[in-house]
Order: sequence, then structure tokens, then C-alpha cells
Amino acid sequence: MAKDFPTREENYAQWYNDLVIKADLAENSAVRGCMVIKPYGYAIWEKMQATLDKMFKDTGHSNAYFPLFIPKSFFSKEAAHVEGFAKECAIVTHYRLKTSEDGKGVVVDEDAKLEEELIVRPTSETIIWDTYRKWIQSYRDLPLLINQWANVVRWEMRTRLFLRTTEFLWQEGHTAHATKDEAVEETLKILKIYSEFAEKWMAIPVIRGIKSPAERFAGAVDTYCIEALMQDGKALQAGTSHFLGQNFAKAFDVKYLTKENKLEHVWATSWGVSTRLMGALIMAHSDDKGLVLPPNLAPIQVVIVPIYRKQEQLEAVSEKANVIMDALKAKGISVKFDDRDTHKPGWKFAEYEFKGVPIRLAIGPRDLENGTVELARRDTLEKETYQMTDIENKVEHLLEQIQDNLYKKAYAFREDNSFKIDTWDDFKERVEKGGFVYAHWDGTAETEEKIKDATKATIRAIPVDNPQEEGKCVFSGKPSKERVIFAKAY
Amino acid sequence: MAKDFPTREENYAQWYNDLVIKADLAENSAVRGCMVIKPYGYAIWEKMQATLDKMFKDTGHSNAYFPLFIPKSFFSKEAAHVEGFAKECAIVTHYRLKTSEDGKGVVVDEDAKLEEELIVRPTSETIIWDTYRKWIQSYRDLPLLINQWANVVRWEMRTRLFLRTTEFLWQEGHTAHATKDEAVEETLKILKIYSEFAEKWMAIPVIRGIKSPAERFAGAVDTYCIEALMQDGKALQAGTSHFLGQNFAKAFDVKYLTKENKLEHVWATSWGVSTRLMGALIMAHSDDKGLVLPPNLAPIQVVIVPIYRKQEQLEAVSEKANVIMDALKAKGISVKFDDRDTHKPGWKFAEYEFKGVPIRLAIGPRDLENGTVELARRDTLEKETYQMTDIENKVEHLLEQIQDNLYKKAYAFREDNSFKIDTWDDFKERVEKGGFVYAHWDGTAETEEKIKDATKATIRAIPVDNPQEEGKCVFSGKPSKERVIFAKAY
Repeated sequence: MAKDFPTREENYAQWYNDLVIKADLAENSAVRGCMVIKPYGYAIWEKMQATLDKMFKDTGHSNAYFPLFIPKSFFSKEAAHVEGFAKECAIVTHYRLKTSEDGKGVVVDEDAKLEEELIVRPTSETIIWDTYRKWIQSYRDLPLLINQWANVVRWEMRTRLFLRTTEFLWQEGHTAHATKDEAVEETLKILKIYSEFAEKWMAIPVIRGIKSPAERFAGAVDTYCIEALMQDGKALQAGTSHFLGQNFAKAFDVKYLTKENKLEHVWATSWGVSTRLMGALIMAHSDDKGLVLPPNLAPIQVVIVPIYRKQEQLEAVSEKANVIMDALKAKGISVKFDDRDTHKPGWKFAEYEFKGVPIRLAIGPRDLENGTVELARRDTLEKETYQMTDIENKVEHLLEQIQDNLYKKAYAFREDNSFKIDTWDDFKERVEKGGFVYAHWDGTAETEEKIKDATKATIRAIPVDNPQEEGKCVFSGKPSKERVIFAKAY
Repeated sequence: MAKDFPTREENYAQWYNDLVIKADLAENSAVRGCMVIKPYGYAIWEKMQATLDKMFKDTGHSNAYFPLFIPKSFFSKEAAHVEGFAKECAIVTHYRLKTSEDGKGVVVDEDAKLEEELIVRPTSETIIWDTYRKWIQSYRDLPLLINQWANVVRWEMRTRLFLRTTEFLWQEGHTAHATKDEAVEETLKILKIYSEFAEKWMAIPVIRGIKSPAERFAGAVDTYCIEALMQDGKALQAGTSHFLGQNFAKAFDVKYLTKENKLEHVWATSWGVSTRLMGALIMAHSDDKGLVLPPNLAPIQVVIVPIYRKQEQLEAVSEKANVIMDALKAKGISVKFDDRDTHKPGWKFAEYEFKGVPIRLAIGPRDLENGTVELARRDTLEKETYQMTDIENKVEHLLEQIQDNLYKKAYAFREDNSFKIDTWDDFKERVEKGGFVYAHWDGTAETEEKIKDATKATIRAIPVDNPQEEGKCVFSGKPSKERVIFAKAY
């Protein structure tokens, strides 16, 4: 097995791309910008889905499904939405093919042209709020707490596996509330779910913050986000939760009768995370030897590799391995016993190391004699010999330790790469090197734009509960009451 | 609550449609032919998905995800596939909108025309086999056992909620094998999974059979199916499993190196079930009072309705209800306690009856005194008073009984509506009335076509392990070796 690929130092972008492809997570397809998510990558996504889905359901949300297509005219109904969105998208104009004249292929049947074009959903606020109009009449119908797992399409010009693809998978929550306070509360509740998921499951520390107006979702009153720092010093927006005010309710005429018998517009939120999380997960922890996966999301948490020469040795090792497997499975740990005779142990070691399996156990005839097992941790690459006794508890404990260690490592990295910057020269230099740059900003879109033009850095977030502090804008020198986080971003 | 809708007798089609809409399962959307699956309906689909997904994984399959779009030219690569398929589909021709000249809306940007049109997948054999070419080199890469949960689009002219919609949700399995035998075995293994799922979970007896050549999937060598009988005497194809031979491997040039170092084309299967199963589930068991759901797929298996006048009565009842809820939940039974004060008990009774909740428990002050609970079964509509002691075990047992009863009822219905028919006159009369008609057929597509033209009946299946029996074709009088099943179908 040759997994030749550059180190992070040599070429970070190439390192990432090679890792995704060579670790069998995803690959490019025949359709420009659309990826194929391979079984190993999809298994991680399934774990993410299952975890988030439970968190949503535990907080009262239900799943539903809305159409893939949206009539073109829907996009024009919410002015800011159409202005900021929906321009680069896949447009369905016809509904029939016919055999070509030479009989060898198919061509579009021009007689089958749609009266109104359909847009493949880039996001579903419009079609969902068009539907909610029928579902919401009275305060009794509220709150409406709905989530959808779906594919969406945004016609991206430059794509990167998981991080930015034309089609991607996501969940989009769309809730309706009787009051503004309740909708704001929901927006923040979801932000908390997202950050908990990122930190406890993905082992990635995130900043919970609010976006500046320029970075807001098109149609939102406020956009909250979780923002993570990658190993190359770039920021990655890992999830957003939008307070939509009454914008979509007004655009789609969704009103409800209050307890006091008054007709009022409904308040809304929407929120989503996508397969982009896969990109964050891969970039946050992996190293020059390959993928590193946090145990809570690893499809295979433990792999057992038998070491043997003769068939009877394999049999003896297998017997022991099966006992360990059963004990691990009983604890809910996912374990794979790789007894393939087509590959040597050394090849297997490299393979699972490359694929980020958190713990590898190796058992050979010598181990059987001594009642031991060799255990290798993927995160630290340490190897140690353990007594076989009680191995399932040791492994369970170690998985927790690895999960914790990855989080701490990522946290330390972020702390080491967060900087308070007060002068424009320092700012430019620091932004170029990477990291989260905490700097004062005068609060204007104009300054934000100028900073972006000069440095490519954008305001990633204004942290929730941001400490207030008198200062001067790093660019304009005008007065400022708080620092905001600047960075170059994915 | 007024749930006015026709009886099955009065208007079966309308009964079905009203049931779907009024029981909050699904509704039509603003996009012609595309449905919105509402939370209650989607919760049933989620149970179906979870069950099938486990069955697929337990038999060695992994999930993956392939692109929504397929380049138009791909369809022409497998001749039978393009001939039988892919004509009525959604075609993406452009990738950008722009603001209209009056500034009020958006129009298609004609400068953003795709070089090659993209088809929204009606099924994914072509794009998947184009991908498999890269994944399969040697016998070591086989078998490849992959499934995908996805949305697909077929531009249907006449649509019906769940049964036939332009967009629908499904799973599609696509496997690759080294030998013909192994691929055939896989096709049959999946057929068995489908029939087990239909019978044990949906409580619907199905015929496992093979399709006649005319009804075969476009591009398949053999199409196997499970076929169910609905209450109106029409057949419904509930799932198909295709043995594709080497057709797609040849079309997409997918070869593997055998152990003997020879290059050979790969053998293939594909198989799928869709949200159409929802239609089958609804039609198979429901009655003139509303939905009837088998306990194994009911989102709410038990509902508890408190009977009270005064607040302290509600409190006493709630206390008891909570104890029962906990005991039921501990058994993995999904239970809802409806203590809303916005609706009366009678309204709630009607609501849950209409929505097909298998068991309803009612508890009032009198019950507390007597240590009893009133239990109503949705399937038989029987009410009985039970001692509260050990109620969780009684409920658990009863849920099993209801599941079993629904299957037996559906089985008896099918038996009562299956007929051996030997003359053409009887055939025409019987087909008109409905049911499965077992008749001799001479094996020619010509006769099949003529029977269809004359009666609208098609060959639904030639049962697996069909008893061989000398006879004469019901239409042509030519010799035949077995009976096949005719019916009018959804």
C-alpha cells in the first residue's frame, strides 16, 4: 500500500485533498463539482446524522420532507433572499428527452418545456414558508419545530471535496413561533446544540458568535454561527442558526390568530449543518500519517489484527480475538477483526493508521503465551503492551481519553493561534500567517469591506457574551466597544 | 374535529387521498407532482428506513452517496436502459439566474447554459457503474455491496400521493459480483429481505415472484418483485430486485482480474423500495374510520388520554399515567400522554382512532379508585377494562397480537381474493372485479399485450417456486406449464 501524499507543511490543500481521496472518504464524480461519498466517509456522516437527529428530537423537533424543486417565482418573494442568494443554481427547464435523429443517443425534447422553470433547492425557506401558510392558523399550531435531512445544490465555481461542493447533504431546520423572544430562544438553543456536537463529538472547540451584517444569511435578521480554526490557521464556519424575524412570514403571508384573537405574522428561524462538517473533522485532527478520527465518530473504533505464520496460530489468535470482540461489542464499541489472508500485518497496520482508526490491537502467538495484547493509539502513535485481563474496560477508558485528548489538542492549537491585535501593520502580518485575530472594529460595513479587500480576512464572528472593552478600530481608528474575530476563511 | 371523507365502498381513490391528507401523512406541494411528507408520515418512513437499513447492514451492505445529477450521455450507454427509461425526467440546462430587466424578479441567464444537459436521477445505475469502473480492478474488490438512500425524480403525468409522485424517496442497492451465481443469489437474498419486511413489519403478505419480460426493469436480465393485494382488489408492486447480468458492466467497461489472472466483466444487481411502501401500508389495513397502522411501524404505539373535570383529578391521573408511561418506555414501546387542555377526551379519541394509533388507554378518577384502565384496540375497535397491575406486559402482548391480527386479516383477504381462472370469459369478469387471477399463459409477449389491451390486467408475477401444471393459455389456448398472476395494478 502506497499512500504517498504531501505533508501539511509542504502543501496543506493537497494534503487535505489526497487524504479525502486516499482514505476512501469521497471522490470527484463525472458531474462537475458533485462528489461521491464513499462508504467509509458516509459511515462517519451517518454517525453525525444519528447524533444530531437525536439532539433535535430530544428538543422537540420532528423531521419532514419538502420538494427538491422550487418554482422560480418563489425566490423573488423575499427581497433580501433573492438578492443575496439563488443566483448560481441548477435550473430545470424541460421534462422530457427523446431519441436523437441518428437513433444513437437522446436529446432534450423542446416540446417539453416547463411553463415556469424549477430551481433545484439551494435552501428551502421559500417552499417551506409557502407550505407553512397552510399549516398555521392559530396559536395552537405553534411552535412548529421541523427539520429536514436533504440534498441541496449551489452552483459553485471552485469546489473542494466536502468543503464546497455543488451538491451537498445537510439538515435544515425551519421553525415557526408566536413571539420574537421564542424564536430568538430557538435560534440560540440550536446554536448550543451545534457547539455541543462540535465539541463533544467532533472534538473541535468552536466560537459561538453572531455574524456581522455583511456575512448574514440572505433574508435573516441575525445569523449566529459556530466557527472553528483549522490547522492551517484558516477559519471554518461549521454551522449557522438564523433568526429570520417576520421576513419570510411576511413574504409568504403566514399569519396566526393569537389567544386574544388578533391576526399576526409568525416569527421564524432556520438553521443548518452540512457535509462540510466532514471537511472540518478531517482537517482539525489529521496528521502527516493520515486521518485521525475522534472515537465518538469513528466508524471503526478498534481494529484487531492477528499476527501469525501458521494456520493453527491464526485459529488460536482468532479464538482469543473473538472473545475480545464480544466483550467490546457488549460495551457498544465498534470493532473490526481483520483476518484477511490477502494482506500482511504490516500493510494492515499502515492501512488503519492511515484511515484514522483510534485503537489498534495486535495479537500474536507470543501474546497468547503471555496473556498480553499490543495496543497502538492513533492520536499519539504510542504503542504499549497490555495484560489481556479486563481489556474491554481498558479500551473503553482509552477511547474516552483519546476523545478528550483530541479536543484538548485542538483547543490548545486554537489558543496558541488566537491573537489580540491593535495596530494595522500587526493585523496585516498576523492575518497573513493565520489564526483568529481579535481586533477592534468600528462597526461599519465599509471598514469591513476595506479590510477584506486589503487582507482577504473577514469578520468570522462577534462572540456571544463578548467582553465589552473600549478601543479603537484597527483599520479606521474610530472608537469601538468590543473586539471581533477576523480570519481568512474556508 | 370533522374528518369527513368517503368510505372505501363509495369512492376508494378518494378515501385513500383524503386519508393521506387528513391524517397528516402528506400533501401536494406547489410543485406539480411533488409531495410534502408531513411529520407524522415521515415518522413512519423513518421507521421503515431504520428497519430496512439494519437488514441491509446485517447482510454486509454499506451505504454511500452518489450525485443527484447524471450527464445526459450516460443514459445512452446501455441500450435497453435508455429505451425503457429516462425519457420523462427533469432536465437541468442552465446554472444561473439573473435579475429581470424590470428588477422585480429573476430570469434564467441564457449565458449560463450547460454544455451537456444534466438529468436529475430517475435511478442511478449509470452514474454508479461509471464510478465502479474506478473502484473495481481485481477479485479482491468484489463483492461490492452498496446501498444509497436518496431522492429520485421521474416526470409522471398522473400522480397520486406516495403511490406515484414526480419526486420520491427510496433506497437503491447496487452490487457488483465476480460470478453470475453470486449475483443471482444476492438478487434473491434481497427479495427475501423485502418480503420479510413487508410481512413482519408492514403486516402485508406478498407474493415473491419474477416479472415477465415485458414488465422487466430496463436493462435487467431478470426482475424479481414482491407483489401485494390492496383492498380494492388491485395489485401493488412493493419492491423490485434486479439481476442485471453483465449489461451495465459492459456498457461502462467494468472488468476485474480473476484469481486466474483473466480479465472479466463484473456481474451486477440493483434493487429498491420507495415511499410507495407508505401507500401500500395505508391501503392495506385502513378502514372507513381512518388509518390503521401495524404496531411495528406506528410512530405512536400507545396513547394515554386522561379523563377529568377538575385540575386535581388531572394531577392524580397524570401521576398514574406517568408510571405507566415509564413502564411502557422501559419496554421500548413508544407512548404519548395527551394532556392538552385545548381539546376534550372525545375529540382526542376520534383523533387517535383516525390516525391509526394501535392502542388507546383512557384513565379517569373512577379508574384510579378501581385500579383499572380502559383499553381500546384500533384494529378491532374493541374496548375493554383492564386491571392496572402489570399493564405494560398486557400492552406489550396486545401489540404483538394486533400486529399478528393485521397480517392474518390481510392474508385472509388475499386468499379470498385469489382465483384460479380457466376461461377467457371468467377471466375478463374476474379481472374487472379485482383480485389476483391465477391463469395459464402461453409465455408470449404478444398474448400478454393483447390481454392487457382487452382487460387492463398485467402479469404481476410468476411466483418463485411456482408449481408446474399442464394447462392451456386463458387467452390463446396454447399449451402452458404454469399459472401466472394477473391483476389490474397501481
